Amino acid sequence: MTTDAKILFALRANSDGVSGAQLAEQLAISRAAVWSRIEELRQVGFAIEAGPHFGYRLVGEPDALLADDLMARLGQTKVVGRDIRVFEETTSTNDVIEKLARDGVKEGAVVFAESQTKGRGRLGRKWMSPTRKGLWFSVLLRPNLQPQETTQLTVASATALRRAIHSVTGLSAEIKWPNDLLIGGKKVVGILTEMSAEVDRVRHVILGIGVDVNQDAAEFPVELRKIATSLKIEAGGEISRAELATEILRELDVDYVRICGGKFSQVADEWEAGCATIGKKVSVQMGSRLIRGCAEALDDDGALLVRTEHGHLERVIGGDVTLEK
Amino acid sequence: MTTDAKILFALRANSDGVSGAQLAEQLAISRAAVWSRIEELRQVGFAIEAGPHFGYRLVGEPDALLADDLMARLGQTKVVGRDIRVFEETTSTNDVIEKLARDGVKEGAVVFAESQTKGRGRLGRKWMSPTRKGLWFSVLLRPNLQPQETTQLTVASATALRRAIHSVTGLSAEIKWPNDLLIGGKKVVGILTEMSAEVDRVRHVILGIGVDVNQDAAEFPVELRKIATSLKIEAGGEISRAELATEILRELDVDYVRICGGKFSQVADEWEAGCATIGKKVSVQMGSRLIRGCAEALDDDGALLVRTEHGHLERVIGGDVTLEK
Repeated sequence: MTTDAKILFALRANSDGVSGAQLAEQLAISRAAVWSRIEELRQVGFAIEAGPHFGYRLVGEPDALLADDLMARLGQTKVVGRDIRVFEETTSTNDVIEKLARDGVKEGAVVFAESQTKGRGRLGRKWMSPTRKGLWFSVLLRPNLQPQETTQLTVASATALRRAIHSVTGLSAEIKWPNDLLIGGKKVVGILTEMSAEVDRVRHVILGIGVDVNQDAAEFPVELRKIATSLKIEAGGEISRAELATEILRELDVDYVRICGGKFSQVADEWEAGCATIGKKVSVQMGSRLIRGCAEALDDDGALLVRTEHGHLERVIGGDVTLEK
Repeated sequence: MTTDAKILFALRANSDGVSGAQLAEQLAISRAAVWSRIEELRQVGFAIEAGPHFGYRLVGEPDALLADDLMARLGQTKVVGRDIRVFEETTSTNDVIEKLARDGVKEGAVVFAESQTKGRGRLGRKWMSPTRKGLWFSVLLRPNLQPQETTQLTVASATALRRAIHSVTGLSAEIKWPNDLLIGGKKVVGILTEMSAEVDRVRHVILGIGVDVNQDAAEFPVELRKIATSLKIEAGGEISRAELATEILRELDVDYVRICGGKFSQVADEWEAGCATIGKKVSVQMGSRLIRGCAEALDDDGALLVRTEHGHLERVIGGDVTLEK
């Protein structure tokens, strides 16, 4: 952790206040250095009171993502979030982390952007990323999986995001296979899983995640208002993006460790329990082919098993899934 | 085609010679310009005689790969080789073409290098690429395939290389699943298939191909001499690398068009007929797992079907295959 991260950690752990002398001792720096770091944290938007009786006290947080802050909140994880970088603006966070991946950066690295100029979704679609309104980020993983097993990671992301959203907002999101979370039938999260691989060996996987957090309804383009929503709209109030981001990374870490430990079936069970797709009639457009039937379950690799009208069981790994009424 | 490529094409089509006036007319440039291009071709190693009776005549070729020359030799193809670039030295041609792929270069682009400083094989292994002794190149493809179907392209590369080697040298190579060609049991070609993909959609595939062409036995490291060979050693004489390169690209184009047209089964039949692995006892090391049995066939996606000692049919998409005696 950086010094700033340690100071934030200490301030949060001592909500009644912590003295400059204590901070200086814990961090092994001078009291003047503590004062200067506190000033810098104020500059980036943290409201920190100082007084002779209580020392320093954190009373307000900026509506900005800051790497030091996120690392202080996150604490210790196994893999995800050991390296966090925040950009004010990028083309797409997947592009940035792809470059880091090629430069040999370790798995678990996370790149956030306050806005993206070329955010993208599945099938080459555009993803809207308005400044400071959501979480737009990418996670680098280097799992020991074969290419067809990477669907497991999309599934794990969905379960992790569902738990994190519930714990921070109290909202229950439904999973729409393979990569969306919905609240009240409207999309609130999209996940794009990209990989670089040999035929039989994944080199790295990038999870690109977009969460609509603090938009008001009027901030969505008219054509999206019936199909998209934000956590703020659904919860009826602003959500701390930093708190949500940290919770998501923590839960992703949990599920990633489960998958690396060969326990994907646990993740899959949880996924099926939270899934709006299972048991429903669906139609799946796969290229020029349309499959219609009942979504029955996930298989071992996270593919969707659809029982067609003719009784065949089709294994669906992608395509465009529509829930039928 | 560039002007140089057109001149080489015309010289080859008229082995008795072609006049400067004819060339100037065909290319719509001045005779002085023709003379100046001919001078440049001589500079890079083409032996071109000039005489009052026969005009210009091509009597010798450089032992170098030149993009213009390769394009002139190749002529019209559907996809593969429509854009050819030759580098004197690269880290790995796969790295160069990966960058081109991200910059949006069209499929069919081919990058050759006269030598590679970081040539690589499957499973992160090193690939030796001595200067001008072989063909070290990569082909960019953007097939409409799912990730698990890309094995088809490795299989197609093997059949295409086998035909090209036979037509240029008369040698019959055997295929060792999934990515080697052997002559007399020794490796002469390696193929590395890399991809960038979403879970259900390939974005691009890069075929990295290494052919040991003109090494003498003494030029192989001692530890490789029992397991590797070159076409020169096997054929008993130097091979024109430019001729072989062009023939390989032409045959790759044929097989790629077959696969895009849904005719992988044709390629697979040809592959099985030329394959040293089918019908043999094999052991396959897949990570920590060892599978032993009889290699029976290829499946629809190019995976190897191995009947184990216990009678199970295992589907092998990678790993390290050893032919047992």
